[in-house]
Amino acid sequence: MRNYKVVLSYDGTDFRGWQRQPGERTVQGVCEEAVFKITGKKVTVHGAGRTDAGVHALAQAANFGAATRLDDPDLVRALNAVLPWDLRIAALEQAAPEFHARKSALAKTYRYRIVRSPLISPFDFRYALHWPYPLDLAAMRRAAPLFLRTADFTAFSSNRERGPVRTVRRSELRRRGDEVLFTIEAEGFLRYMVRTIVGTLLEIGRGRCRPERIEEIFSGRDRTLAGPTAPAKGLCLVRVDY
Amino acid sequence: MRNYKVVLSYDGTDFRGWQRQPGERTVQGVCEEAVFKITGKKVTVHGAGRTDAGVHALAQAANFGAATRLDDPDLVRALNAVLPWDLRIAALEQAAPEFHARKSALAKTYRYRIVRSPLISPFDFRYALHWPYPLDLAAMRRAAPLFLRTADFTAFSSNRERGPVRTVRRSELRRRGDEVLFTIEAEGFLRYMVRTIVGTLLEIGRGRCRPERIEEIFSGRDRTLAGPTAPAKGLCLVRVDY
Repeated sequence: MRNYKVVLSYDGTDFRGWQRQPGERTVQGVCEEAVFKITGKKVTVHGAGRTDAGVHALAQAANFGAATRLDDPDLVRALNAVLPWDLRIAALEQAAPEFHARKSALAKTYRYRIVRSPLISPFDFRYALHWPYPLDLAAMRRAAPLFLRTADFTAFSSNRERGPVRTVRRSELRRRGDEVLFTIEAEGFLRYMVRTIVGTLLEIGRGRCRPERIEEIFSGRDRTLAGPTAPAKGLCLVRVDY
Repeated sequence: MRNYKVVLSYDGTDFRGWQRQPGERTVQGVCEEAVFKITGKKVTVHGAGRTDAGVHALAQAANFGAATRLDDPDLVRALNAVLPWDLRIAALEQAAPEFHARKSALAKTYRYRIVRSPLISPFDFRYALHWPYPLDLAAMRRAAPLFLRTADFTAFSSNRERGPVRTVRRSELRRRGDEVLFTIEAEGFLRYMVRTIVGTLLEIGRGRCRPERIEEIFSGRDRTLAGPTAPAKGLCLVRVDY
């Protein structure tokens, strides 16, 4: 029995998120089916981050235990051969028995893409939020680093969770041509946390909220104080560090 | 009655090509429906190039006649509001009455994308041919300019057509990281011509055909001498010049 670590890329458009659910097409479910087809064993595939429905991954990490006579390159090929085009194993390696994709993760990085041009091309539509309206980018840039902290992020999460304290180590907004890219890195995230932070940054960009209000929102610990949850399709899990 | 010129972008994956066909989702059909919804009139939308099923467009050109009280920006917005996400009007302007998207076109440029990395990401899968096998790029690069000519391209077209002489003004292959991009420009193309040229270049890249054989293939005027038709999804109409 080996503990395999895999790096997954997926187009989240047609998945109901990461987590296995009966009758739904989910990333975890489709991965587990693929492992079953190749090894004949029912396994649990543990993901580093439980991405929501519609969220993409450039490099999600996951692990599963399996016994197979296939060597690693053949196992990748076999799994990719039975996986659908919108879910690919980009890398596979054998990890230590105690390795767990979520528990062992030191940091995860998400990126949110906003396309500001009057029109969004069909080639970007599935992968970015289209925002053709004015945005005060300077205010948004000033606000982004205010999320850099170890704090109770309850106001930026849709569920009340036990242990809502998280440490954000990177939070930056930059322009790339017609796009705005927001990158955030933390050890872990609460549910909808990145999308709520993006929604709040958009409220700031629209002039509906001043960057100075972020302090109040944090201390209020009340979801209704923060901005709306930004759409899933702009979000991508780009990196998991171990 | 005005003659509108539009520039269209589309993800060809879910279209049965350009040309209207009863019961099929085609680019022309969907455009004509959109114009009908906005203006109440049945029109013919003339495209510069009749792209095949699965072929994409960054900037296809088209024209149609219509009478409307909407000004140009409102007309674009109204049309895009009823068009699906995978078909967008990137630009619209009023053209001279005699302007015809196909007949007036001076040149069209197509680009073919080949991804050579062992794995193709889900974000590229719909838009490129995945070719993880060896390719003799030097031979392909030597062969590409051999298509620069005014000649009978019958061998590179799937139908015997009347007037099979075409003038290719640009034909170049370049590497961009893990990708190979082939760009070809001509006044006009025969059916499947670009994909057959790409298929022939791939045969050369695989060492199954020497660049020197291109001459014979041209003079043989026989489709079976050229390589197979490369898959549609790697092809994109990137530009139409007037």
